[in-house]
Amino acid sequence: MRAVLFQGVGRVEVGEAPEPQLETPWDAIVRVEWAGICGSDLHLYHGKFPLLPGSVLGHEFVGVVEALGEGVRGLEVGTRVVGTFHVACGVCPFCRRGEFHLCERRGVYGYGPLFGNLPGTQAERVRVPFAEVNLRPLPQGLPPERALFAGDILATAYGALKNTRLKPGERVAVVGAGPVGLMAVEAAFVMGASKVLAVDRVEARLSFAEGLGAIPVNSTKENPVRRVREETDGEGADVVVEAVGGTATLALAFELVRPGGRISAVGVDNAPSFPFPLSSGLVRDISFRLGLANVHRHLDELLALLATGRLRPEQVVSHTLPLEEAAEGYRLFDTKEALKVLLKVG
Amino acid sequence: MRAVLFQGVGRVEVGEAPEPQLETPWDAIVRVEWAGICGSDLHLYHGKFPLLPGSVLGHEFVGVVEALGEGVRGLEVGTRVVGTFHVACGVCPFCRRGEFHLCERRGVYGYGPLFGNLPGTQAERVRVPFAEVNLRPLPQGLPPERALFAGDILATAYGALKNTRLKPGERVAVVGAGPVGLMAVEAAFVMGASKVLAVDRVEARLSFAEGLGAIPVNSTKENPVRRVREETDGEGADVVVEAVGGTATLALAFELVRPGGRISAVGVDNAPSFPFPLSSGLVRDISFRLGLANVHRHLDELLALLATGRLRPEQVVSHTLPLEEAAEGYRLFDTKEALKVLLKVG
Amino acid sequence: MRAVLFQGVGRVEVGEAPEPQLETPWDAIVRVEWAGICGSDLHLYHGKFPLLPGSVLGHEFVGVVEALGEGVRGLEVGTRVVGTFHVACGVCPFCRRGEFHLCERRGVYGYGPLFGNLPGTQAERVRVPFAEVNLRPLPQGLPPERALFAGDILATAYGALKNTRLKPGERVAVVGAGPVGLMAVEAAFVMGASKVLAVDRVEARLSFAEGLGAIPVNSTKENPVRRVREETDGEGADVVVEAVGGTATLALAFELVRPGGRISAVGVDNAPSFPFPLSSGLVRDISFRLGLANVHRHLDELLALLATGRLRPEQVVSHTLPLEEAAEGYRLFDTKEALKVLLKVG
Amino acid sequence: MRAVLFQGVGRVEVGEAPEPQLETPWDAIVRVEWAGICGSDLHLYHGKFPLLPGSVLGHEFVGVVEALGEGVRGLEVGTRVVGTFHVACGVCPFCRRGEFHLCERRGVYGYGPLFGNLPGTQAERVRVPFAEVNLRPLPQGLPPERALFAGDILATAYGALKNTRLKPGERVAVVGAGPVGLMAVEAAFVMGASKVLAVDRVEARLSFAEGLGAIPVNSTKENPVRRVREETDGEGADVVVEAVGGTATLALAFELVRPGGRISAVGVDNAPSFPFPLSSGLVRDISFRLGLANVHRHLDELLALLATGRLRPEQVVSHTLPLEEAAEGYRLFDTKEALKVLLKVG
Repeated sequence: MRAVLFQGVGRVEVGEAPEPQLETPWDAIVRVEWAGICGSDLHLYHGKFPLLPGSVLGHEFVGVVEALGEGVRGLEVGTRVVGTFHVACGVCPFCRRGEFHLCERRGVYGYGPLFGNLPGTQAERVRVPFAEVNLRPLPQGLPPERALFAGDILATAYGALKNTRLKPGERVAVVGAGPVGLMAVEAAFVMGASKVLAVDRVEARLSFAEGLGAIPVNSTKENPVRRVREETDGEGADVVVEAVGGTATLALAFELVRPGGRISAVGVDNAPSFPFPLSSGLVRDISFRLGLANVHRHLDELLALLATGRLRPEQVVSHTLPLEEAAEGYRLFDTKEALKVLLKVG
Repeated sequence: MRAVLFQGVGRVEVGEAPEPQLETPWDAIVRVEWAGICGSDLHLYHGKFPLLPGSVLGHEFVGVVEALGEGVRGLEVGTRVVGTFHVACGVCPFCRRGEFHLCERRGVYGYGPLFGNLPGTQAERVRVPFAEVNLRPLPQGLPPERALFAGDILATAYGALKNTRLKPGERVAVVGAGPVGLMAVEAAFVMGASKVLAVDRVEARLSFAEGLGAIPVNSTKENPVRRVREETDGEGADVVVEAVGGTATLALAFELVRPGGRISAVGVDNAPSFPFPLSSGLVRDISFRLGLANVHRHLDELLALLATGRLRPEQVVSHTLPLEEAAEGYRLFDTKEALKVLLKVG
Repeated sequence: MRAVLFQGVGRVEVGEAPEPQLETPWDAIVRVEWAGICGSDLHLYHGKFPLLPGSVLGHEFVGVVEALGEGVRGLEVGTRVVGTFHVACGVCPFCRRGEFHLCERRGVYGYGPLFGNLPGTQAERVRVPFAEVNLRPLPQGLPPERALFAGDILATAYGALKNTRLKPGERVAVVGAGPVGLMAVEAAFVMGASKVLAVDRVEARLSFAEGLGAIPVNSTKENPVRRVREETDGEGADVVVEAVGGTATLALAFELVRPGGRISAVGVDNAPSFPFPLSSGLVRDISFRLGLANVHRHLDELLALLATGRLRPEQVVSHTLPLEEAAEGYRLFDTKEALKVLLKVG
Repeated sequence: MRAVLFQGVGRVEVGEAPEPQLETPWDAIVRVEWAGICGSDLHLYHGKFPLLPGSVLGHEFVGVVEALGEGVRGLEVGTRVVGTFHVACGVCPFCRRGEFHLCERRGVYGYGPLFGNLPGTQAERVRVPFAEVNLRPLPQGLPPERALFAGDILATAYGALKNTRLKPGERVAVVGAGPVGLMAVEAAFVMGASKVLAVDRVEARLSFAEGLGAIPVNSTKENPVRRVREETDGEGADVVVEAVGGTATLALAFELVRPGGRISAVGVDNAPSFPFPLSSGLVRDISFRLGLANVHRHLDELLALLATGRLRPEQVVSHTLPLEEAAEGYRLFDTKEALKVLLKVG
């Protein structure tokens, strides 16, 4: 079958990959219709994690169930489904607690040997382990290119806000208005934020955030700490979502948050540690949460919100390309010419 | 001073009432700018509760602080404030727990001897006991005629939904699209409802609800139980707000709610009891909550949502009249010619 | 195999029943070691639900996995497990939401054709559908006769309290000190109740409750409403668990609860409805919850509490009998000579 | 009046201090009966914060209301009360949200000019600002020397656990078995912990923790990481309370906590920052919370738990001395000869 193959650092091409097979009674084979290129695919593209040449990339997808192992319940061949970016087993102690993102058998599609060695989803077909846990039928009327976001970046942003226990009326600052940050803007409003401030340096992204209802704050043109305080009665934001993943933006988050506020960091960075402000953190009573998204937990409520159009994450898609043009898609996304790229596969 | 006076069942007139005075160190005198006519004012108008002729009516208001007792903290003369429909003391065991609506010294303005014997707010001035608990300054830029709703019917609807712990993505049915029901429609969306169904018999109210994003269900034209199930994958609503206050609509709520769902009833009815469906309630695992609004608890978050326009309850105002025309206002509201009447006082 | 058989109203005997077989890939066969006789078994014994003569009774059990279908994950032959009193599928919309007690494929062991037609567990072996959902391995060191309670009456009592969102420091009244009520006393303390009052008419049960730390209130000797108020600063209980299941005890619950309090009813009654106090419920702001236990949801935390002995529900066992003496066990329990009967099966 | 006076680093003596006066209508004068010496008093004793010689020390106290300003509601002269270690105003935006520990007018008794310049409570009398917010009558029958703990270290430990949203059945590790750590052990059990591990180096403290039901872990004799994992099915603790306040113990907390777990740090340290483990924190999904206790928020539920003896923090008191022997009390506590010292004042 045709698939997007990693061929070395900075090299991606579409070529032939082995057809996936049912390997256990709990597998499904999904014929992929749409696949996304995600910011974390670029980590592999840049060689941050080990990956053999010829490996299939990608972990965002919507498709149709083509085959099912005998042990799979709750799914039927022919059903359109959205997948989660990582797989969970459903029966380990973490999954039993609903902590699917910490599953003992966790694996990420297309992420190489450190993450379960699962072929990616930017391909005509993909094998889905523990299918009844890791696929969900689309609600009636939900466009597949919107549904795709529920399996990764929308859930990441949404989960970051859920982790803060955001309450209606609160004021949210989002640091970084890339795709994940923009999802956070949308999600914050759905959860009842009275005001959302988006902090970035790129005017185009800020305009996009403004279109979603946020107050744009260009940190190259104004002091974001001062602006956030002005917009929050001098207090700072109740909640800060750090969606960049750098130590400088983490430090900024601590300045933007009000005493008693909560910081939720979703960016994936290289730095092994950052200097947590201990004395001021104590006096200012800051909650800090860092973590991978628990996609599975949020999936059903996100699909409900997507189905009625309360969330429209597909707005961020700047480019839709056929699978065969995936290399160009990676280039556009890596150079930031594209905000979000979807591949139309089948 | 001029004030709206109850003169017997069905008789309201504007006349002279005694100027209010500071009676304790914790009182404030507020010069009223706007006062609302509330559905529960009609209970008095119809003689459901004892009230002496000549009593001042009303409990919804926005105004400016004109005088303060020496014991009042956190307020200043000249500040524009919104009041809550009832007063709480702030220091009894209920208030200490944040259950202001159950305050041992609770009193409702303009509601007669059974409710603390406090003169009403449809007047040029009103005395506010325990002022630091029962008044809140308006956030900058918040129009007073919008803020007014935070002190009563918006908080009632909002609190009814809070009591259900509504989660994003859930589906809400609102029974009764009068002013409180329409507030519930708006509030449900702010809390993240994926879908809201409004059930009523009056086409104009349903159109209004539709304008707020709800699916209108005219129960004289279609079976509301069937329609709600169709719109909820055959399950029923996750949450039902009963905003009428009749035993028939309560019974309907039990039919509209899904197994495991929650009913929150805010209507004020005359019936002393209704037959709670015990066997089916057990099997279907229904949560039932009835109660007065805890306005004070929700006040700050509502003011934040009102200030940025995420809630716009003033949309329901069909008539704005000067204080002197209050009698006409009562007539219009009682006959349902008006959806909501505000009085411009000062 | 040997099993406890229903032979008509009030007639139970131990006899031969067909060996269970694996019927689907998701089944397990469990060799039963311990089975309980539950208050709800008596409903069948008394003919309240249709049941064919010769049906196997019982739904509480601990045993060892003897055979597994090929589709079952997370379990191994030879593992000691506790079962839940009803089965859930794990993949329907209710199960996906964690509402296992409302599962679309719910079935109760030994409860006849209205409840899924599953043979009971008072037998040498039992077939467990959807085994990975409906069995849980015992933590190391947990005695089986203690673990058994997690699958039914302890979870029922615990869940009733969870439904009230009991907070540390609150005061709980339990109406009915039978086995479920006594579980509620224990569970309330584990959740942090500062004080628990147990209301009953039987002195022996009250002594038992007192031994668990509760204040005994014999309603034949003193006015329970007055006593509960005395013990709660005149307010009434924050939370009332109604563990009898009668309309009189429900009415009592409304008198025992404080304004703003919560009633959770777990008793199973015959009355189709009861007169819910509408006017006083409104003014007093009462939350009312009725429902079957969501056993699956609470299972892991209960097993953790049982394993370290923080919960010791086996204290209520008054009689342990071999399977062959089950008829005597039913007689003892039905006549209230026994507080709780366990059958030692294998 | 007689009072404990700071006379320079490491020098404390009992001498004469000015009688406190009512300075605002919202003040109370309390005649102190019991005062505690707190670990944070030692910070001043060691000169960590600026304090003028002659300043009165102390912030833990129980006493009797002797005088009240005219603006104070809800208190009466002659009532026995417990005070909070810091004062809050009750009307600023933080207090309105229930975040009393972040009050804009926060002041700590006996903590010098950086903390509101309030004379301390190790004295015959103390002025209490905003008295209706910062004093609470003792429930009937509650011994004053037990109640005293509710105003500071018990609330600190309890609040640290509340911040983690500890659920029944969870496993807690407490790092540091000093007075605060021991309070955390007791509080964890009240909130439903199935197991508590106390990690320390001092055998006497560990024995004390064991007496409270904890598993003692002497980190000089065994590897605490290995032991905690053994006791938690190899996972690590669900919740870690760091009650020492050092960067080494913080680092240990990250090793003791399970993936998906929560760390709550209450120790007060000098280090301005510590290296937060970013990469592993992301993969392991750790929640981190640091902060001062919100004493006021927990006061009523703690008093309820103390009144019925479910919490017995006075067990940690190793020495009770008359006020005049306070210098000896400081010495004993500073050298760790005492676990906790109370001063009997009046």
